[in-house]
Amino acid sequence: MHPRTALRLVLPCLTVALASAQEPIDRDLNARIREEAFQRSQIMATLHQLTDVHSPRLTGSPSYRAAAQWAADQLKAWGLSDAHLEAWDWGHPGWTNLRCAAHAEAPWTGRLEVEPLAWGPSTEGTVRGAALLLPVPEEPTEAELTAILAAAGDAVKGRLVLAGALRDLPALNPAPMPLRHADEALAKRFDPAHPTPMGPRPQAPRRPGALEPRAVNERVDAFLLAHKALARINDAGLRHGQIRAFSNRTYDPARIVPTVVMRHEDYGRIARLLQDGVEVRLALEVANRLHPEGTKGLNVVADLPGSDKAGEVVLLGAHLDAWHTATGATDNGTGAAVMMEAGRILAAAGAKPRRTIRIALWDAEEHGLLGSAAYVKAHFGDAEQPLPGHGSLVAAFNVDSGAGQVRGLGLFGPPAGAQVLRELLAPFADLAVKGASASANRPSRKRPGPSSDSASFSAAGLPVINVVQDGLEYFEYTWHTAIDTLERVPPEDVKRTAAVLASVAWHLANREERLPFFGKDTLPPSPDAAPQPLK
Amino acid sequence: MHPRTALRLVLPCLTVALASAQEPIDRDLNARIREEAFQRSQIMATLHQLTDVHSPRLTGSPSYRAAAQWAADQLKAWGLSDAHLEAWDWGHPGWTNLRCAAHAEAPWTGRLEVEPLAWGPSTEGTVRGAALLLPVPEEPTEAELTAILAAAGDAVKGRLVLAGALRDLPALNPAPMPLRHADEALAKRFDPAHPTPMGPRPQAPRRPGALEPRAVNERVDAFLLAHKALARINDAGLRHGQIRAFSNRTYDPARIVPTVVMRHEDYGRIARLLQDGVEVRLALEVANRLHPEGTKGLNVVADLPGSDKAGEVVLLGAHLDAWHTATGATDNGTGAAVMMEAGRILAAAGAKPRRTIRIALWDAEEHGLLGSAAYVKAHFGDAEQPLPGHGSLVAAFNVDSGAGQVRGLGLFGPPAGAQVLRELLAPFADLAVKGASASANRPSRKRPGPSSDSASFSAAGLPVINVVQDGLEYFEYTWHTAIDTLERVPPEDVKRTAAVLASVAWHLANREERLPFFGKDTLPPSPDAAPQPLK
Repeated sequence: MHPRTALRLVLPCLTVALASAQEPIDRDLNARIREEAFQRSQIMATLHQLTDVHSPRLTGSPSYRAAAQWAADQLKAWGLSDAHLEAWDWGHPGWTNLRCAAHAEAPWTGRLEVEPLAWGPSTEGTVRGAALLLPVPEEPTEAELTAILAAAGDAVKGRLVLAGALRDLPALNPAPMPLRHADEALAKRFDPAHPTPMGPRPQAPRRPGALEPRAVNERVDAFLLAHKALARINDAGLRHGQIRAFSNRTYDPARIVPTVVMRHEDYGRIARLLQDGVEVRLALEVANRLHPEGTKGLNVVADLPGSDKAGEVVLLGAHLDAWHTATGATDNGTGAAVMMEAGRILAAAGAKPRRTIRIALWDAEEHGLLGSAAYVKAHFGDAEQPLPGHGSLVAAFNVDSGAGQVRGLGLFGPPAGAQVLRELLAPFADLAVKGASASANRPSRKRPGPSSDSASFSAAGLPVINVVQDGLEYFEYTWHTAIDTLERVPPEDVKRTAAVLASVAWHLANREERLPFFGKDTLPPSPDAAPQPLK
Repeated sequence: MHPRTALRLVLPCLTVALASAQEPIDRDLNARIREEAFQRSQIMATLHQLTDVHSPRLTGSPSYRAAAQWAADQLKAWGLSDAHLEAWDWGHPGWTNLRCAAHAEAPWTGRLEVEPLAWGPSTEGTVRGAALLLPVPEEPTEAELTAILAAAGDAVKGRLVLAGALRDLPALNPAPMPLRHADEALAKRFDPAHPTPMGPRPQAPRRPGALEPRAVNERVDAFLLAHKALARINDAGLRHGQIRAFSNRTYDPARIVPTVVMRHEDYGRIARLLQDGVEVRLALEVANRLHPEGTKGLNVVADLPGSDKAGEVVLLGAHLDAWHTATGATDNGTGAAVMMEAGRILAAAGAKPRRTIRIALWDAEEHGLLGSAAYVKAHFGDAEQPLPGHGSLVAAFNVDSGAGQVRGLGLFGPPAGAQVLRELLAPFADLAVKGASASANRPSRKRPGPSSDSASFSAAGLPVINVVQDGLEYFEYTWHTAIDTLERVPPEDVKRTAAVLASVAWHLANREERLPFFGKDTLPPSPDAAPQPLK
């Protein structure tokens, strides 16, 4: 999931009550799907390949390419057609970390926990020096930041710089997020008669006059480089030693000093000692390498070909790329594995769809939904400048909210579409699947956001279905952290999601009519064409 | 807290209903105590010194000595008398880690998370080699272990050996421990009329014929040393990347190979790849040093001198030593800081006790309650071979269950003693303090256990009071882990404990009679003298 807006998953609902139609359900196929999904599941073996074997899956890296190639080969081996890697130009070299180690050398000795910033430079072997605290607050104004940097000046030269004032986190979390959605909340959310208005979570308003976080970051990077700091150390600012490390937004190692993210506990100890006036001496080694051949993004695409409506496509998509500090198990190995498993299940169950069911694994979601956006641009265009293929997409599914099982579906489309989905989900009530909602929220490409690849489709005026999942520990422990590993995945959850999506995709591929979608007249206008507040 | 039995905190209750006596309460002093404890608290500043400044506090290390000397100097500065370090011979050199770093070099590259085993040897610079999985189950029989080691044989030579079969931990924790005790449970526990029988938690019975874990460990160590393994890697086996690393039980680095504890996520990835038949190459650097001068244990002792009953002592004790992978904030920096703060509060409040109130910070609790046992042996002897001072101890308090606030007291003594404590605690009902219980459980020195320094006293037939605390995150996150740092301590909790203990200690030091205790005839016999089941 894309970092900037990971909490903004839920699209607004505009559903209204509908008279129930009668969706035909293929009970025999559903039975075969369940048998494949639960008796002969391959999904944990697939996840083992994507996480343990072929990680990190950072865009442009050899291990991402190996993961993509393995996925294409496996889909082919399962009997899907035309499994291939679809390349597009993302324009940056790949990057891999080789070594990353930090130690305190005085006044105490021993290991410090750090993760490297991706696309950062290497240190020259192990660099040693005194730590310095650059007390940049979380939301400085231009004047405040300028004053802090001016006050530091050349003092940062040859130092390992803790970039950021020490934050005071609460010692306890008295109200951890529940692992699963409450049934009542989902019933309300999916009730066509009484939809709960939903939308992006209100972001805490930034302090008046505060600079954009990205601008602060760039100013600090430029300052540390110009003044020859040895390294930049950022505070992870998370509980229980967790670390999230993202990337040098320029993708050019020459534009920043070697940078690591340090667990809050070590950052805090060092910062408190510096505040006491104690000299703290650190040692840091970061060794990275670039992969100039990595400038092509690689989406993985494979088909279960349709018959009489083969030109129409039901797409099962999820991003395959992941951040580098762990193995990307819940973001988004589970999404990719669920879609691959859905394809395997349908092939193994001998399903012969009328429309084409396409499995697509996106690259570079973490860098701005780039892989899915490239695919949409190449194959569909958008509603305002459609390519000939724009009308061929019946629905694009997206899974990108962790390991939690499917609890329902959220359609970018009209209420009639959600009603069809509710009926197709009804046979899975025993697996705690609760329903579906419809939304007319068409994201912007320009405003901050979007949250996941689904936005590449809805922004282009294409029908997309987000999978509503149980949260499990996603936002508290696994989202982008260094412990996003296979250990975080409950097998039963991902098996259920694969079974449900296989069935719904197959029924959408086989029903007489396309899934109801907006018409030219009813499609919400692009917010970029005509800016409008989110409903 | 001592590792082997950390869950065995609670002593059995044998309380019976008593007619309420009338304990005189000094409401004026209690008011001054609260003012010092909450308006002019020093406890977080003390914890900063014990954790950030003077850590790790591993017995025999220079930083333990510095912490002990700082504590003695600070107690003196606060006005306590005869503040000094009391040395005893523990017979091992000190040990400090300088560097510890592990990396994967193939088939992927990057950092692995490991912590060094204390009193282990250094590697020769960075050692590199292939990983090998030694699949020792958790409870092998002699025959099974012998077979596994025989099968490995010389294959371990030059390898980094993962010592232990991969364990399968549940992905989720559906029922985390509550942060605080339920009031109803405490009311029942402290009810003299209806005591809840309590005792050591039932240990899961070991598999029939299974070797003692310690014996398995020693066999594996000896095997790896004899067959020239490069290093031993143990699975931390904890959720969320947590690591607990203890010590080489021989305290002789020459008797084991370099050993680290690896977070479960990294151990799992490597073990699963090895099970696939993939070669995994690792690099490990561990640099340690010994401190031959560290063979003396150092307890910290300081007094608030008594007047007409100065020869009788109320002792406020907690261990000061801690494991090396973190800063020992909740085990047991909080206990030491609480007792120091209680002494400071009483001195600052101008309390003039009739009996002597002694602050004692124990060394080497983590190595078998050694500091407190040495103190008891030197000053009291035991009930069977008492020294002249044996009768001088009125009560010894112990705090060693994390950062959680005091909720009550557990006395090794008769019901009449618990009744006195209940009355002295009554003025703190507004701070969620619920009561007291009495127990006749006299621990063994020979059977596995004990849990904390309190057992050094009760085993010797001396009156001891364990502080019953809220658990907070102690057993799930902070107990002996690499994140047992200052960030884990809620200030309000430790302030409350210090205030309550200062008051109870002062009232015990000033009441006309000693706290009721067992007589020669009613003291439970030593289980070692006459083995008996725990009640």
